[in-house]
Amino acid sequence: MAVKFYKSENQVPLEMHKVRVVQKLNLLPVEKRLQAIQGAGNNTFLLQNKDIYMDMLTDSGVNAMSDEQTAAMFTADDSYAGSETFNRLRRAVKEVFGTEYLLPAHQGRACENILAEAFVKPGSVAIMNFHFTTTKAHITRCGGEVVEVVDSKGLQPQSDDPFKGNFNLDVLKETIEQYGPENVAFVRVEAGTNLIGGQPVSLENMLAVADVCHKYGVMSVLDASLLQDNVYFMKTREAQCKYMTTKQIYHLLADKMDIIYFSSRKLGFGRGGAITSHNESLMKSLMEFIPLYEGFLTYGGMDVRSIEAVAVGLYESLDMDYISQGPEFIQYLVKELDDYGVPVIKPAGGLGAHLNCSEILPELPHNQYPAAAVAAALYIAGGIRGMERGTVSEQREPDGSERYAELELLRLAMPRRVFTLSQVKYCADRVKWVWDNRDLIGGLQWTEEPKVLRFFFGRMKEIG
Amino acid sequence: MAVKFYKSENQVPLEMHKVRVVQKLNLLPVEKRLQAIQGAGNNTFLLQNKDIYMDMLTDSGVNAMSDEQTAAMFTADDSYAGSETFNRLRRAVKEVFGTEYLLPAHQGRACENILAEAFVKPGSVAIMNFHFTTTKAHITRCGGEVVEVVDSKGLQPQSDDPFKGNFNLDVLKETIEQYGPENVAFVRVEAGTNLIGGQPVSLENMLAVADVCHKYGVMSVLDASLLQDNVYFMKTREAQCKYMTTKQIYHLLADKMDIIYFSSRKLGFGRGGAITSHNESLMKSLMEFIPLYEGFLTYGGMDVRSIEAVAVGLYESLDMDYISQGPEFIQYLVKELDDYGVPVIKPAGGLGAHLNCSEILPELPHNQYPAAAVAAALYIAGGIRGMERGTVSEQREPDGSERYAELELLRLAMPRRVFTLSQVKYCADRVKWVWDNRDLIGGLQWTEEPKVLRFFFGRMKEIG
Amino acid sequence: MAVKFYKSENQVPLEMHKVRVVQKLNLLPVEKRLQAIQGAGNNTFLLQNKDIYMDMLTDSGVNAMSDEQTAAMFTADDSYAGSETFNRLRRAVKEVFGTEYLLPAHQGRACENILAEAFVKPGSVAIMNFHFTTTKAHITRCGGEVVEVVDSKGLQPQSDDPFKGNFNLDVLKETIEQYGPENVAFVRVEAGTNLIGGQPVSLENMLAVADVCHKYGVMSVLDASLLQDNVYFMKTREAQCKYMTTKQIYHLLADKMDIIYFSSRKLGFGRGGAITSHNESLMKSLMEFIPLYEGFLTYGGMDVRSIEAVAVGLYESLDMDYISQGPEFIQYLVKELDDYGVPVIKPAGGLGAHLNCSEILPELPHNQYPAAAVAAALYIAGGIRGMERGTVSEQREPDGSERYAELELLRLAMPRRVFTLSQVKYCADRVKWVWDNRDLIGGLQWTEEPKVLRFFFGRMKEIG
Amino acid sequence: MAVKFYKSENQVPLEMHKVRVVQKLNLLPVEKRLQAIQGAGNNTFLLQNKDIYMDMLTDSGVNAMSDEQTAAMFTADDSYAGSETFNRLRRAVKEVFGTEYLLPAHQGRACENILAEAFVKPGSVAIMNFHFTTTKAHITRCGGEVVEVVDSKGLQPQSDDPFKGNFNLDVLKETIEQYGPENVAFVRVEAGTNLIGGQPVSLENMLAVADVCHKYGVMSVLDASLLQDNVYFMKTREAQCKYMTTKQIYHLLADKMDIIYFSSRKLGFGRGGAITSHNESLMKSLMEFIPLYEGFLTYGGMDVRSIEAVAVGLYESLDMDYISQGPEFIQYLVKELDDYGVPVIKPAGGLGAHLNCSEILPELPHNQYPAAAVAAALYIAGGIRGMERGTVSEQREPDGSERYAELELLRLAMPRRVFTLSQVKYCADRVKWVWDNRDLIGGLQWTEEPKVLRFFFGRMKEIG
Repeated sequence: MAVKFYKSENQVPLEMHKVRVVQKLNLLPVEKRLQAIQGAGNNTFLLQNKDIYMDMLTDSGVNAMSDEQTAAMFTADDSYAGSETFNRLRRAVKEVFGTEYLLPAHQGRACENILAEAFVKPGSVAIMNFHFTTTKAHITRCGGEVVEVVDSKGLQPQSDDPFKGNFNLDVLKETIEQYGPENVAFVRVEAGTNLIGGQPVSLENMLAVADVCHKYGVMSVLDASLLQDNVYFMKTREAQCKYMTTKQIYHLLADKMDIIYFSSRKLGFGRGGAITSHNESLMKSLMEFIPLYEGFLTYGGMDVRSIEAVAVGLYESLDMDYISQGPEFIQYLVKELDDYGVPVIKPAGGLGAHLNCSEILPELPHNQYPAAAVAAALYIAGGIRGMERGTVSEQREPDGSERYAELELLRLAMPRRVFTLSQVKYCADRVKWVWDNRDLIGGLQWTEEPKVLRFFFGRMKEIG
Repeated sequence: MAVKFYKSENQVPLEMHKVRVVQKLNLLPVEKRLQAIQGAGNNTFLLQNKDIYMDMLTDSGVNAMSDEQTAAMFTADDSYAGSETFNRLRRAVKEVFGTEYLLPAHQGRACENILAEAFVKPGSVAIMNFHFTTTKAHITRCGGEVVEVVDSKGLQPQSDDPFKGNFNLDVLKETIEQYGPENVAFVRVEAGTNLIGGQPVSLENMLAVADVCHKYGVMSVLDASLLQDNVYFMKTREAQCKYMTTKQIYHLLADKMDIIYFSSRKLGFGRGGAITSHNESLMKSLMEFIPLYEGFLTYGGMDVRSIEAVAVGLYESLDMDYISQGPEFIQYLVKELDDYGVPVIKPAGGLGAHLNCSEILPELPHNQYPAAAVAAALYIAGGIRGMERGTVSEQREPDGSERYAELELLRLAMPRRVFTLSQVKYCADRVKWVWDNRDLIGGLQWTEEPKVLRFFFGRMKEIG
Repeated sequence: MAVKFYKSENQVPLEMHKVRVVQKLNLLPVEKRLQAIQGAGNNTFLLQNKDIYMDMLTDSGVNAMSDEQTAAMFTADDSYAGSETFNRLRRAVKEVFGTEYLLPAHQGRACENILAEAFVKPGSVAIMNFHFTTTKAHITRCGGEVVEVVDSKGLQPQSDDPFKGNFNLDVLKETIEQYGPENVAFVRVEAGTNLIGGQPVSLENMLAVADVCHKYGVMSVLDASLLQDNVYFMKTREAQCKYMTTKQIYHLLADKMDIIYFSSRKLGFGRGGAITSHNESLMKSLMEFIPLYEGFLTYGGMDVRSIEAVAVGLYESLDMDYISQGPEFIQYLVKELDDYGVPVIKPAGGLGAHLNCSEILPELPHNQYPAAAVAAALYIAGGIRGMERGTVSEQREPDGSERYAELELLRLAMPRRVFTLSQVKYCADRVKWVWDNRDLIGGLQWTEEPKVLRFFFGRMKEIG
Repeated sequence: MAVKFYKSENQVPLEMHKVRVVQKLNLLPVEKRLQAIQGAGNNTFLLQNKDIYMDMLTDSGVNAMSDEQTAAMFTADDSYAGSETFNRLRRAVKEVFGTEYLLPAHQGRACENILAEAFVKPGSVAIMNFHFTTTKAHITRCGGEVVEVVDSKGLQPQSDDPFKGNFNLDVLKETIEQYGPENVAFVRVEAGTNLIGGQPVSLENMLAVADVCHKYGVMSVLDASLLQDNVYFMKTREAQCKYMTTKQIYHLLADKMDIIYFSSRKLGFGRGGAITSHNESLMKSLMEFIPLYEGFLTYGGMDVRSIEAVAVGLYESLDMDYISQGPEFIQYLVKELDDYGVPVIKPAGGLGAHLNCSEILPELPHNQYPAAAVAAALYIAGGIRGMERGTVSEQREPDGSERYAELELLRLAMPRRVFTLSQVKYCADRVKWVWDNRDLIGGLQWTEEPKVLRFFFGRMKEIG
C-alpha cells in the first residue's frame, strides 16, 4: 500500500507486513567490487552472489516468502500420487482462477515446453504481444514462428501509456488472417510483458484478444507469471476495474482464456509452475507430457514443500496489500530517477525499473554494448547487480553480424518483499552517481564470446 | 546398521538416528478401505494419500530428511546466478564423486531428457543393464532404441545371485559390435536396477563395463539414482569393497564413467537432480539444454531450498549408518515374508520388497492382472499401498493385443528413514494375511483403459 | 496404537504416524563408552549427549514434535501483549480442559513456584499421592511440609495394581483432619505419578479426592504434566472410561479440580507450562506472580514459537493415536524384560521402564549405590543413558548419614515419538546382557560429593 | 549501517541484510481503531495485536531472527543434560564475553530473581545507574533497597549528553560509604539504561564503576540486555572505542565486571537469558537456583531451539552491520520528529524513541495521564502501539495518593530488524499529525484501577 503522508514531499510506498527473518548482505569495498566485476568478465551473470549487495538481476524465484508459506512447507504431504498437498494447490488455483483442471510443472519454461510440444507444429505461428526468451526458444525449437503484435507505444520509451503491453487488435486480426487461423498454434497474452519493461495489458484489451481468438477459432493462452503485478495496474489504472475485486478480475480472465499458465517463481511467491483451464479436453491433450518431462501429475517435478508454499502464495496473489508492494517500490525508484533526469522507461511497470542506456551513453554504439557497460558501472558504484537487456542479450545473425537490440536497457528487478525503502533509495542514489559520472564509462568488447547464450556465459573487457 | 542382538531370534535392523518430527497417519476401517479402492478403480495410483496408512508406492521424493538438511534449507542463498547454495552443492558433488563439472536439473527424468536430446540420434541405440520407464521414453522419443543386456540371473526370481543387476559382458560386447560403436549413443549402467527389484551391480562389473566402453570408444553413463543402496551392497556383498570407504567407491566409479546423473529424490534424500563429470567438453555440450528446459545453470529448475537439502544429503549418502537403513529394513521384510512362504524376489534389493504375484495367484492369467489384484487386496487388508509392476504397467502392442510383463510384481517400496520396525512388521503381517487368504482374490478387468499411461490413470473392476 | 498381529508371537506397538525428520545418533565403541562414563564420574547426568546412543534420561522436553507443531512455530505472532499466538493457546486449553482462565509459565516447576508462593504459608501442609522433586523443593522453601498419601500398593514393586498412583482416601481424610483443613495449602493430585514409576491414578480416585477436598473446603490441584499417559491408562484399564472420549475425561477432571497446572515439556509435546482453572478469583490471586517471575501474561516467559507448538500439541494430547505411543512402547519394553526375568516395576507406567536395582544387585548395600552402578553398566553395555532414582538421588541427613531410598530404581524414560521398536528391542537386549552379567558390576563410592544436588553434579568411582 | 547518500537531504539508515520471511500486518480503518482502543480501556497493553499496524510496545522478544538463527533451531540437540546445543551456547558466550562460566535462565527477570535470592539480604542496598521494573521488584521482594546514582543529565530531557546513562561516580562512592560496603548487595550497571530512554553508559564510566567496586570490595554486576546498542554508541560516540573491535569492548567489560547477565530477548535476538562470569565461586553460589527456578543447568528453562538461536544471535551481537540497525533507525525517527518540533528525548538512545508528553500536553496535569492520552491518540491516528512510561506506570503511595513520574514519556520501541524506513516514516508522520492536532487530546481517568500493576491491567476513559 502506498500512503500519501500527512507531511511528506511525496508518496512513500509502505509495506503492509513486517519482517520476520533476515539474511546478511555484504557490501564490498569499491576496490573489491572492481576486482569482482573484472573477474566476472564484466558480465553480471558471472558475479558471485556473495559479492553483491543488492541483487536486482531478476524477480524470479527470489521473492521473500510469508510466514504462512514457510509454515505450510512443514505440513507437506509427501506423496507421489494423491497427495493432500496437491489437493491444496488445486483448491488454491480453483479459488484464484475458478478453473477446474490443473497440471503442475517445475516452472514456467516447463509449461512452455509442454505447450509447444502439444500445439506448435512446424510452420505454425504463435502470436503474442511480445516474446519472452524461453517461450520463443520452445516455439522455434518445435518449428514454429513467433509474431509480436504489441501496440507500437509499447516500444516507445517515452510513451506514458498506462498499458504499454496491449495488443494492437487490428494487427492481431491481420496476422491471424495472413497466416490463416488453422496455422496459428495459439495467441499468447503475456501479462506484465517482461521484455518491454514489465508493462501491463489492460483488462479490456485482454478480453478483446480473447474475443478475437474466439471469433477466429484460435486458442488463447494467458501467460500469468506477472499477472499479479498486472492486476495491480488494472485496479489502479483502469476505471472499470476500480470496484472489482482482484478475484473477479482473475476469474473473468480465466473464463475467457482457453489456457492459463504461470511460473510460481513469480506468481505465488514460490517455485514451480502450472497450467490450468476450464477445458477438460485441452488439458487431457497435455496430460501425458507431465510425467514425461516433469513428474507425476500430482507433483509435476516440484518439491512438495514448494507446492505448499505456492498454494498459500496464490491466495496472497489476491491480496492488494501484498501485490501492491512490488509495483509501488518500482514506481518510487522510477520517480526518483526520472525526477533527477536519469533516462528510465516510463511509466513504471511491474517487474523492475529499466534504465535506457542508449540515452545514458548516447555516443556508445550498440556494438560497444552500452547496457552492459552501465551494468558493470552500477555494480562498481554500489554493489548492485542488474541485468543487461540489450544487444548482448541478442544472438548474432547466422552470418556473424550483430543483431542490434531495439532498446539498450539495464533492468533493475525488484524481488517482491525483499528490499526496503532504504535500499531502494540507496539504489537510486547509486544510479544518480553513475548518471552524473557517465563520461567515465567506456564501451566493452568480447574476450570470450560463446556461440549460444553469450549473455549468460560470455566475458568482456573495457575498450581502450 | 543391523545388529545381531545378544538375545534375539534373528538380526534386527536398527536406526542410527532418532526421530525429530512426525506426521500423523490414518488407518481407515476396512469398510472404508474397500470403498476407497473401489473409488480408485482398483488402481493404487488413484488412491488419495489421506486414505493410506503405509504409502509404499515409491521411494522417490518421499524420504525423510535429516535435521541438518532441514536446517540447511533456511540458509538458502536465493539467487538466480552465482548463488552460494549452488556453490555448496558443487562442493558436495566434488566431495562425493570427485568430479569437477556439474549441471543441475529438476529431477532424474530431466537429466534423461537432456542426455537423450544431446546424444540419442534417430537410429542409434542405448545399451543398458535394464531400462527404466522414463529413460526409455526419452530415448525412443529421440528416435533411439533401448537394448537390455542384464545377466540372465537378473530376471530369475529364484536366483539368489548377490548382483542381479550385473551386465552380461559378452552380450554387451556383441551388442556394441552388432550395432557398431558409432551407432551406440551410450551405455547406461543403472545402479540398483529399479525395474528388476532394485538389484545391485557389482563394482567389478561396473568397472568392466566402463573398460568395454573405453575399448570401443563408446560413452559410459552411470545412473546413480540408486547408487547409495548399491554401494551398501558392494560394501556388504563384494569382498574387494569391504575395506574401501564408501567415498573411495563413489570416486572410483566417477573416475571410470564418462557421465554420471542422478535423481536427488533418491540419492541425497531430497528433490532435484544433476549431471556430473570429469569431462569438460561433454558437459559443455549439455550446458545449453539446462536453461532451455530447466533453469539457469546455478539452480537448474530446483527450489534453492531443495538444493541446500541435497547438498547436505549427498554427504549423508557417504554415511553407512544412513545408507544401510533402507536395505536392512527391506532385507528384514523380505526375510519375514520368505520365511513364511510368501513368494518374494530374492535376494532383497535396495528399493523395496517385490512380491511375485504370478506365484501368489498362479491360476490367474496375465490379462486378469494378478499384480494389480494383489495390490488392491493388500490395500484392503492393511491400508498399504504398493505399486503394480506387471502387465498393467506395460503398454498394449500397436495391434491392441496385450504385451505380457515378464514378471508380475507388486513393489512395496521402502522410503528411507520413514517407517519403523513396527510398521515393517505390520506390513509383513498384512502380506501374510493376503497370502493365506489368496483364494479370495479374483482377477480384474478394465472399466476405463486410457491409450497411454494406463497404469497411471486407468480404472478396473473385479471380474465376476 | 498397539495391534494384535495376525501372525505374531505377541502384541507389537505400532506408530500411527510416519517419520518426517531424523537426527543422527552415535554409538561409540565400547572402549570409548567406558572412557566416557569414567570421565563423567559414573554419573549419567554428566555424560555429553554426543556420546550417547539412546538418551533415556527423561521424557521432559525431549519429545518429537509433529509436522503441525513445527509448522505452527512459523506463524507465531511475536507480541508481548495481546498476541494471537496466546489467543490460540487459550483456545487450545479451553478445548482440552474446558477452562476459562489461563496463566502461562516457562515450565512446570515455574508453576509450582507460583502456587507455592501464593498458597503455601509457613507451617502449612501440602498433601499429595507422591511428591515430585521440584514440587517439594518449592513447598519446603516456602515453609510448608509435604505429606504423601499414596496407596501402599504404589510402593510395592511386585504389586500389579493398575492404578498404583491412587490416593489412599482414608489416609487423605485423616491427614486433613490431623492438620486441620485450614492448614492444608492444597491437595495435589499427580497424574502419572512420576517418582514411583509413572503410575497412573484412576478417574474414580481423582474424582473422589476432589470430593474429599470439596467436603473439607480444601483446594484441589491437579498436576497434569503426565495426564496424557494417565488418560491412556484410564481409557484402557478403567471400565467406566472405555466409552468416554479423552476430552470428556479431561473436562470431567477440570470441572472438579480447583486448579490444574502442567509442564508442556510433557503435556503438549513442547516446552513451557501453564496454570488453568474455572475459578476466576483463584487465578487473579496468582496473576501478579507471572510478570514477576515469568513474563507478561500473554507469553509467560515462553518463546512465542513454543507457545504455538504447545497450542497444537495440546490438541494432540486428546488423540489416542498419539497418546498411546508412549505407554505402549514402555509396555513392550517392560514385558520383554519381565519375560526374561529382569526385575522391573510392574505394571508398566507412563514415563519409562524402571529397573529394580536392589533385586539386580541384591548383595550391594544402599551405600554402594546399586542403581547408579547399573546405570553406569548399561551405558557401557549399550550407550544407553538412564537416570538413577535411588539413594544417590536422596540428600544426606543433616548429620551426614545416608538417607536410603525406598526403591533403588534405574529409570529408562521413553521420550514420546522418538525411539522405534528396533531401538526399544536394542535397549531390552542390552539390559538383558547387563542382567546376565550382573556379577561383573561392583559398587560405587564418591570421589566428589557436593552438599546439595549431588545426583546432578557428584562423581563416583568403582569400589575396589 | 547508515550511509551518507550522494544525493540526499540527510543520512538514511540502511539495512545490511535483506528480507527473507514477512508477516502480514493489519491497518484497521480509523473507526475500528477508535473502537479497539476504547475496548482496551485506553490501555495499549490491552489491545489485541491483530488490531495493530506497528507494535512499538517493546523491543523485547520481538526482534526478527536471521536465517542462520532460524536454521540453527532445527539442529537443536534436545537433551536435558550435556546437550551439544548448550555447548554451542557456551562457546558463543566465551567468544563474545571471554567468560568461562555460564548459567542459563529463561529470560532476564529470571536472572534477576536468582541474583536477588543469592545476594540481596534484608536491609542491603543495590546501587545502580537506574532501576528497571523487574530488577527492582526482585530486590525489594528480598528485602533490599534500590538506590539510583545516574548522572543528573540522564534525567534532563533537554541534555544532549552522549552518555546519559553514566553513573555519577562521586555519588556512587558516597552511597557505598553511606551504607557501608558490607551492606551493598552489588552495584548494577545497566547498559543502555532502559527507563530513561535507552541511554548508553560510556566505556570509561563502566570501567570506572568497576574500579570503584573493586576498591570497596563490592560486587559489580553488568546488566548487558541492551549492551549491543550500548556498544554501538561506544563505537560511534566515544573516541577511545573507535578503533577497538566490538569484541574487544565486550571482553574488556567482562574482564572488569564480577558478573554479567542478560535477557536474550534483547541481546542475541532470541528468547532466554543467562548469567556469565570469570568467577567460579560466585557462579557456584548461584548454581543451585537454576534447577529450582529454571531447569537443569544445561538448558535453564529455555527451549533448546531458542538456545540454538541465541548462540547464533550472540555472534551477531558482535557485528556492527547488525547492531547498528536499531540505533540508526531510532536516530532517524528522533531526528524527523525533532526537526518538526515534536518534543522528544535526545539524543536518540538504543531502545526506541521517547516522546515527552508533558511538553506535548503541557496543560494536562499528571493525574490526567498525559502519556497515556498521547498513547491512545497515536493508536487512533495510525494504528501504532507505544508504551506509556509515565504516571500510569507508577504505583500509588501507600496512602492512595498518586506518585507522579519524573517524566511523562511515550516510548516507541524499535524492534530490531522488523520495521523498514517506510514504516518509520509512517510512524513519524502519524506522530506529527498527533502533535499538530494535540489540542484534540483530553485527559484520562480510571474506570478500573487494579491495586497492583495497574499499567498492565487498568482501564481508563476520556475525561469530559
